[in-house]
Amino acid sequence: VAGGSGSRMGGDLPKQFLLINGLPVLMHTINRFANYDPAMEIVLVLPESQIVYWKDLCEKNHFLVPHLVVRGGDTRFHSVNNGINAVLECDLIAIHDGVRPLVSRDTIERCFVSAAESGTAIPVLPVNESLRKGKINHSVSVDRSQYFQVQTPQVFNYNLIKNAYHQLWIPEFTDDASVVEKAGSIIQMVLGNRENIKITHPEDLLIAEALLKNI
Amino acid sequence: VAGGSGSRMGGDLPKQFLLINGLPVLMHTINRFANYDPAMEIVLVLPESQIVYWKDLCEKNHFLVPHLVVRGGDTRFHSVNNGINAVLECDLIAIHDGVRPLVSRDTIERCFVSAAESGTAIPVLPVNESLRKGKINHSVSVDRSQYFQVQTPQVFNYNLIKNAYHQLWIPEFTDDASVVEKAGSIIQMVLGNRENIKITHPEDLLIAEALLKNI
Repeated sequence: VAGGSGSRMGGDLPKQFLLINGLPVLMHTINRFANYDPAMEIVLVLPESQIVYWKDLCEKNHFLVPHLVVRGGDTRFHSVNNGINAVLECDLIAIHDGVRPLVSRDTIERCFVSAAESGTAIPVLPVNESLRKGKINHSVSVDRSQYFQVQTPQVFNYNLIKNAYHQLWIPEFTDDASVVEKAGSIIQMVLGNRENIKITHPEDLLIAEALLKNI
Repeated sequence: VAGGSGSRMGGDLPKQFLLINGLPVLMHTINRFANYDPAMEIVLVLPESQIVYWKDLCEKNHFLVPHLVVRGGDTRFHSVNNGINAVLECDLIAIHDGVRPLVSRDTIERCFVSAAESGTAIPVLPVNESLRKGKINHSVSVDRSQYFQVQTPQVFNYNLIKNAYHQLWIPEFTDDASVVEKAGSIIQMVLGNRENIKITHPEDLLIAEALLKNI
């Protein structure tokens, strides 16, 4: 799922199209999954206005990984729902942020293995810094050891995620786990990888280039 | 304050001595403050066993920024307390993680300006990823917009921090703000900078080198 319109990057180009070592972020991301399992069915959800640009980009970069392109919706929830509806019946669906090009093979595997057993799996990391809760002018320390930062891919049993996305959208749906949880399932957490950052700010591109040399 | 013994880096060298662009992390960190205000009094708190090594390192690197070296204690709390006790009476004390070499001039300034007004200031960032709370096998989504990740320098009025450190240590003291808060003060939050990462894992060195090229 790549919904970014680029506003937070300070430039005009949506962050999923920015270059890391000369290749658009989104191609790195798709390659991660295609390399993990070449038989995996890949569905890319993109804002409608970006689909022609993407197809041009694929031609220019000779990007040959087979994938279906589906248009996004008004929110991430609606975009993911469009993606799910484009998937043929299968065992597991993995939903991944297009702007997380550094997900490791091990993270992908841990998620699929755990979701095959329990129906759900999301990659998380312990929180590395002190945390405070509240508002900017009134906050309190909280015990960071009770918190986990959530990454993607978030992997679910096909019927379970399909049913969860029949719910009406509420603003509390910040990721797919929150949608599935609201529908009554327990979310299984597995270990993510620290390199699996979300490209959100300009400096994240520099970080990603440095990390790519290492993994 | 540099208390790391290196266990989490997978190597033998404590992380404060690892090299970024050829210079030990701790020298980058000290330079940030010395460049901000050459008249600032700098106190370095180090484990006793590392003091001779540090002094050698300063000679080898021709590191000439004046600073006082104080031995650390059993916990971060006790180390900070030793540092505070070594400071002559002044207006404000800034307590900084030795392994945050990428604090920006603007972050340092925001902290000092705000602490001069209100007595306390810590740099924070909004949380960038979904958060969950609980244990690894049972957790729930929380609203990340209510949370802030905390950086350093944490800057306080001299008497306020001195008094706060007269408290007995409790495990909930994870940073200086939590100590000052427990003593009854309100903590003022200001914006940190995203590059101001804590060097905790081996890949953080690569990230730091990439970011240093940019700031």
